[in-house]
Amino acid sequence: MSKTEVPYKIYLTEDEMPKAWYNLRADMKNKPAPLMNPGTHKPMTAEELGGVFCDELVKQELDDTTPFIEIPEEIRNFYKMYRPSPLVRAYCLEEKLQTPAKIYYKFEGNNTSGSHKLNSAIAQAYYAKKQGLKGVTTETGAGQWGTALSMACAYLGLDCKVYMVKVSYEQKPFRREVMRTYGASVVPSPSETTEVGKKILAEHPGTTGSLGCAISEAVEVAVKNPGYRYVLGSVLNQVLLHQSVIGLEAKTALDKYGIKPDIVIGCAGGGSNLGGLIAPFMGEKLRGEADYRIIAVEPASCPSFTRGTFAYDFCDTGMICPLAKMYTLGSSFIPSANHAGGLRFHGMSTTLSQLYHDGFMEATSVEQTSVFEAAEMFARIEGILPAPESSHAIRVAIDEALKCKETGEEKTIVFGLTGTGYFDLVAYQKYNDGEMSDYIPTDEEIAASVAKLPKVE
Amino acid sequence: MSKTEVPYKIYLTEDEMPKAWYNLRADMKNKPAPLMNPGTHKPMTAEELGGVFCDELVKQELDDTTPFIEIPEEIRNFYKMYRPSPLVRAYCLEEKLQTPAKIYYKFEGNNTSGSHKLNSAIAQAYYAKKQGLKGVTTETGAGQWGTALSMACAYLGLDCKVYMVKVSYEQKPFRREVMRTYGASVVPSPSETTEVGKKILAEHPGTTGSLGCAISEAVEVAVKNPGYRYVLGSVLNQVLLHQSVIGLEAKTALDKYGIKPDIVIGCAGGGSNLGGLIAPFMGEKLRGEADYRIIAVEPASCPSFTRGTFAYDFCDTGMICPLAKMYTLGSSFIPSANHAGGLRFHGMSTTLSQLYHDGFMEATSVEQTSVFEAAEMFARIEGILPAPESSHAIRVAIDEALKCKETGEEKTIVFGLTGTGYFDLVAYQKYNDGEMSDYIPTDEEIAASVAKLPKVE
Repeated sequence: MSKTEVPYKIYLTEDEMPKAWYNLRADMKNKPAPLMNPGTHKPMTAEELGGVFCDELVKQELDDTTPFIEIPEEIRNFYKMYRPSPLVRAYCLEEKLQTPAKIYYKFEGNNTSGSHKLNSAIAQAYYAKKQGLKGVTTETGAGQWGTALSMACAYLGLDCKVYMVKVSYEQKPFRREVMRTYGASVVPSPSETTEVGKKILAEHPGTTGSLGCAISEAVEVAVKNPGYRYVLGSVLNQVLLHQSVIGLEAKTALDKYGIKPDIVIGCAGGGSNLGGLIAPFMGEKLRGEADYRIIAVEPASCPSFTRGTFAYDFCDTGMICPLAKMYTLGSSFIPSANHAGGLRFHGMSTTLSQLYHDGFMEATSVEQTSVFEAAEMFARIEGILPAPESSHAIRVAIDEALKCKETGEEKTIVFGLTGTGYFDLVAYQKYNDGEMSDYIPTDEEIAASVAKLPKVE
Repeated sequence: MSKTEVPYKIYLTEDEMPKAWYNLRADMKNKPAPLMNPGTHKPMTAEELGGVFCDELVKQELDDTTPFIEIPEEIRNFYKMYRPSPLVRAYCLEEKLQTPAKIYYKFEGNNTSGSHKLNSAIAQAYYAKKQGLKGVTTETGAGQWGTALSMACAYLGLDCKVYMVKVSYEQKPFRREVMRTYGASVVPSPSETTEVGKKILAEHPGTTGSLGCAISEAVEVAVKNPGYRYVLGSVLNQVLLHQSVIGLEAKTALDKYGIKPDIVIGCAGGGSNLGGLIAPFMGEKLRGEADYRIIAVEPASCPSFTRGTFAYDFCDTGMICPLAKMYTLGSSFIPSANHAGGLRFHGMSTTLSQLYHDGFMEATSVEQTSVFEAAEMFARIEGILPAPESSHAIRVAIDEALKCKETGEEKTIVFGLTGTGYFDLVAYQKYNDGEMSDYIPTDEEIAASVAKLPKVE
């Protein structure tokens, strides 16, 4: 396929945009293990989940057989405001690297939340609104999810309470201002506003927080306030379902030009982007229709796939959420404070965990200085300042392209550029000043938090 | 044209993107007055201008007869990385306003510089590189132009020195970090690094700076350093030429759907976005082929069109630049420090000034609290957090749409959404906290700076 044939950016028409989400679980022989009640150690029922989540979302969470679930028209119309997102051919990067590889990236950053998170935020807010709720609560790490949810709630007129991991709250003052502009209230976590927050603060004074803590707080507030439910931006099956719009668009765009990727690469924190991007490719793989190398990239400082244990664990630090069977570092694991690159969650989507366990995908971990090196290079060549999260995928995409240079193979690489780094300038400043360091947890550290995993038969 | 017929976003294909810039001056009977040598009061020659600007750009600056100037292939390829920009139908805003008006906006914010400025930055950097220069110097106000130039220079491997208006430098620390990530050096202006900076600091200690000061400093550095030239992000004819890509794309997109706008609205600081957006529409108007209402929107705190004088003036505070005949508040005019919304230049493009003088367009001024009110509303409804600059146009577009609601007229309104407000969160915070105020300069203030206009026959 020559330069003149494939444009720099492939945009679908509105007609070509997906009308249904793809539910990857329907094609899995080994289904992801069900969420479990932390008290009874029995699978969570729809009724139990309904106390925390919106009803329609509970249905989606539990449905592992329906392959396609229609996207309501209102959500499709909202998608049209910022989607389709472009599939970009990285001609300039290829030229700079002098690689025979063909590099594509699906760019999800062209919206104010700055990432793919909006795809699920609008869906979750829509179902909350439809259920007649007053508002939703959530946690946010780097701030992408909180911003996305604020935008969705502002659009639909829902109240939005965001618990933001303290280290991000301090490093990203402008993130909270965006959320405020969209009418959300933002609380640094752990906080004194919840019982679980008080407990965590008492046990770990001076903690910089974690997604696990923030989830506990947000869930507590949702459960205690009538008319509120909790929503989550990653990990859950429903989130991967909504995010399948990324992969579906990417696949349609590639198909239009007859392109079949060899490698699909995504960064992985809780798995929302990765699960969404790879969905239709993984589907073909599961059905034996095609083969792809699928690579999850995680930070070396929070390596749940590559160094975690596949077991039931709490999704939150406060241990009030259902248990999920996943690759986990233990719910008490808190990434080093020097880690600036997002992807801080201790566990991983149950769906992706099962697929990884069954050998359908690979995982690798990268250190943050090399991630920012790739980020800066990408920014200067491709003109987009990437989010640190997304830059994990850039790092590995570049490495794979350089391998092609050595071997002379003309592989086609697709990676997910999940978002922009416009609110991550404190981290970039650190990198620019040469003050960024790497941290790899010791085996002892990981063993210590894994030792606290709940005992489940 | 019904909702189903016009998509939310109209994207041109790469083939439909402009291959030449449109030089509006070629269609003007009354040409804009030439730049004048401040010493001799004679029109600047190409040779004189060549000491400050790149040769090819001087040629473009002086050419008021060639209607179309080819866009070099390298620039067109760079454009393809972030263009075409979408022409968006504001369905959600229309619905919210309950207006029969049809509102479109040309959104130039989908690139890391966050605005339309990149369109001219890459062109100017390209010609500098082609001339074999080492680097370029420039000024930046809100930071959009400096960021754009940094990106263009990083891409081409040119050195980039940016003088940033001090108030913006302090209000927008992350802007300078983006520029640094792109390898630029950024100095708050006025500074001690130049003679003119020292002089201004001595005369006005504690000044928060102005574009006029920063221009003087950047020009001084360019002239004193071999291998460097000065580049400017607005006001000049060459900039309007490059920015015509905005209007050309917008017009092609409208033509594809048979849409003829009634009103075209753009914010106006130095005129780069406005001149670019309106170019092909104004061309038709000048040639008598069509009629449009064309509205320039400027801040009430820096009202060069609506309260300035049409006369020769310096473009810079240091009075070392050529004189330009334009609507001006006087080169010593410095907008109130409470003004957060960009568009701080004391004068206006000579081309637009002539057109305004000859009655081909209207101008209006708006106060910043009402601008931020429109900005917040737009963000919540259309999902894009707009730059304060762009929000001037949003304000007037909403006002015009509300007039249509009263009269029942189904007018078609097109406005320029020049960029995003992701680096303007200090200003948004002020607005969110209710701490934003308006300032309208008194007649005496304006008269005082206008009294200092150079005496030119």
